[in-house]
Amino acid sequence: FSVRQTESAYRYRDIVVKKQDGFTHILLSTKSSENNTLNPEVMKEIQSAMATAASDDSKLVLLGAVGSVFCCGLDFLTFVNSFIQFRKPIVAAVNGAALGLGAALLPLCDVVWANEKAWFQTPYASYGQTPDGCSSFTFPRIMGLASANELLLSGRKLTAQEAGSKGLVSQVLWPGTFTQEVMLRVKELVAVDSLVLRESKALMRNTTRSALEQANERECESLKRVWGSSQGTDAILQYLQRGTELC
Amino acid sequence: FSVRQTESAYRYRDIVVKKQDGFTHILLSTKSSENNTLNPEVMKEIQSAMATAASDDSKLVLLGAVGSVFCCGLDFLTFVNSFIQFRKPIVAAVNGAALGLGAALLPLCDVVWANEKAWFQTPYASYGQTPDGCSSFTFPRIMGLASANELLLSGRKLTAQEAGSKGLVSQVLWPGTFTQEVMLRVKELVAVDSLVLRESKALMRNTTRSALEQANERECESLKRVWGSSQGTDAILQYLQRGTELC
Amino acid sequence: FSVRQTESAYRYRDIVVKKQDGFTHILLSTKSSENNTLNPEVMKEIQSAMATAASDDSKLVLLGAVGSVFCCGLDFLTFVNSFIQFRKPIVAAVNGAALGLGAALLPLCDVVWANEKAWFQTPYASYGQTPDGCSSFTFPRIMGLASANELLLSGRKLTAQEAGSKGLVSQVLWPGTFTQEVMLRVKELVAVDSLVLRESKALMRNTTRSALEQANERECESLKRVWGSSQGTDAILQYLQRGTELC
Repeated sequence: FSVRQTESAYRYRDIVVKKQDGFTHILLSTKSSENNTLNPEVMKEIQSAMATAASDDSKLVLLGAVGSVFCCGLDFLTFVNSFIQFRKPIVAAVNGAALGLGAALLPLCDVVWANEKAWFQTPYASYGQTPDGCSSFTFPRIMGLASANELLLSGRKLTAQEAGSKGLVSQVLWPGTFTQEVMLRVKELVAVDSLVLRESKALMRNTTRSALEQANERECESLKRVWGSSQGTDAILQYLQRGTELC
Repeated sequence: FSVRQTESAYRYRDIVVKKQDGFTHILLSTKSSENNTLNPEVMKEIQSAMATAASDDSKLVLLGAVGSVFCCGLDFLTFVNSFIQFRKPIVAAVNGAALGLGAALLPLCDVVWANEKAWFQTPYASYGQTPDGCSSFTFPRIMGLASANELLLSGRKLTAQEAGSKGLVSQVLWPGTFTQEVMLRVKELVAVDSLVLRESKALMRNTTRSALEQANERECESLKRVWGSSQGTDAILQYLQRGTELC
Repeated sequence: FSVRQTESAYRYRDIVVKKQDGFTHILLSTKSSENNTLNPEVMKEIQSAMATAASDDSKLVLLGAVGSVFCCGLDFLTFVNSFIQFRKPIVAAVNGAALGLGAALLPLCDVVWANEKAWFQTPYASYGQTPDGCSSFTFPRIMGLASANELLLSGRKLTAQEAGSKGLVSQVLWPGTFTQEVMLRVKELVAVDSLVLRESKALMRNTTRSALEQANERECESLKRVWGSSQGTDAILQYLQRGTELC
């Protein structure tokens, strides 16, 4: 891609980070894993790109191509906290499948636009896992426990429209013009004064930040207990094997 | 019904309890009341069956035929607490009408599958009652106050589809294959490791358990104040009379 | 309009207040501003009418024609608190456009019926403003952060049906019979015993009242910071100019 004067591009190994007019665009494009799965290397790169965006002059972060995401991650606690503690708006553009942590993280983003062809699944229990990414806290508050449990325990697969009507997604956009539509809206957001964006996000988020951090900790402790159990090792192996099948 | 080797059946008077492969199935089939209304005897039996399921090796409880439920109950506090404090998943399969406490209790269950012919109504105010079953706490959090008040104050009747889109129900299933579909999904849940089920439910529920217990207490105190008022006795009589009409 | 024996009418300048059988009807009909915008005079009149209704024998308040509402208001804190602290049910009948504070206040009402032609928009960020009316607190809890941010940051315009499915509105009613339908339902609510209405509202609201008051304070402080900034004065001017265009 072309690097214009007002843009700069940093090439990591597994993500592409483009600093554009007023915002930071983080695109998954994994080399070290197949299908954009969130392995520890990818997670480290995203974290580093977010840390840069937190302190530079970009007004928001646009996460893109978080499409077919799958995760065998390690340092969940720090990775998920880097989303919880981010003070600028995070916009997610979900183009394809959002699986596991890739779907669980969406409620930690501020606006979520989904391609109509996108789909969402968090089949933690069927892989012998407990929820992560604060989904055990955010999902019930967004859609009620009846729906949250169906996703997290029963692994129900949601279409984009269903995710929209359950509140996981802000709006479903037409596939043909998805990228243009997202860019148009991102530009409108970038046109907003930084102080207004920061104050708005603080109003929306500050009251739940510490509850989210605690939920994140509880989830990590649960995962350790499950992984430490006799069935745990089997579950992890099964999880890793099926991971590639799912994508 | 046949009792196979891995199953055992305890016949109460008003409910049927079947211990099946990995789960406890509680079915309403009232003799002491018409239309599966939740009178004190029925409530006591459900409570006792739940207490058994809490300590035996069943991984979850499936509540069935909680269809046309109506309630002139007494010891709400203890009964509702037995749902709040239950540590294993509770699956509700709503086949027909869910009325009053029968609908109010659904947010205390973990997954709720509804027959497309099912319907839901909680006309507390029109019977001179205040909400019970923690519905004054759970309904606003699931569907917002605007919808919750319409159900609890104005007594709006919801179809299964509406209950699904408002988040009271996890998913609406086709009438023709309702029981088979529910059983299939229950079996998938039973295949999940107990530790994973317990940890998942703890993650989803532990942060709200004490708030729910307090809501339950406040609701019971409200009912006492209403019942103690001059209009109260009339309201109870009216409530009991119309109860049978509604079913 | 005719004043019957059981009714009385107080004519303010910008609102019409009708005391009807058991309830107080507040209708916007602004003279000092165009398009029913909520300027300080209008807000003072509403507040005074609510204070009267809080202490007289009316069982609830019906807000009507809060249609095309726009706001350049001043004493938000007190005005919004008068909604937060109101102990009787507030019913809102949204006939046309609900903009800015007019839409933000809806979650502080108890039942919200909307004409199918009504629409809703809270484009705070695009006018350089931060959310008010507790919308930064109530919107995420009703519809999830993904949708709330789209409304408050991106200024998405919602149809009545969309507002209904997101939980901002209790039910969408047919335009042809809107007023009759609302009146029918209001009369059913007025038939409910006062004690039951008061206890029900207390059960639904008491647990969040102080959190709402704090949210209101935080929002007012944010607005002061934004208005005090260099871009702030421009934003207010822009806001006032576009205000009339929008309606």
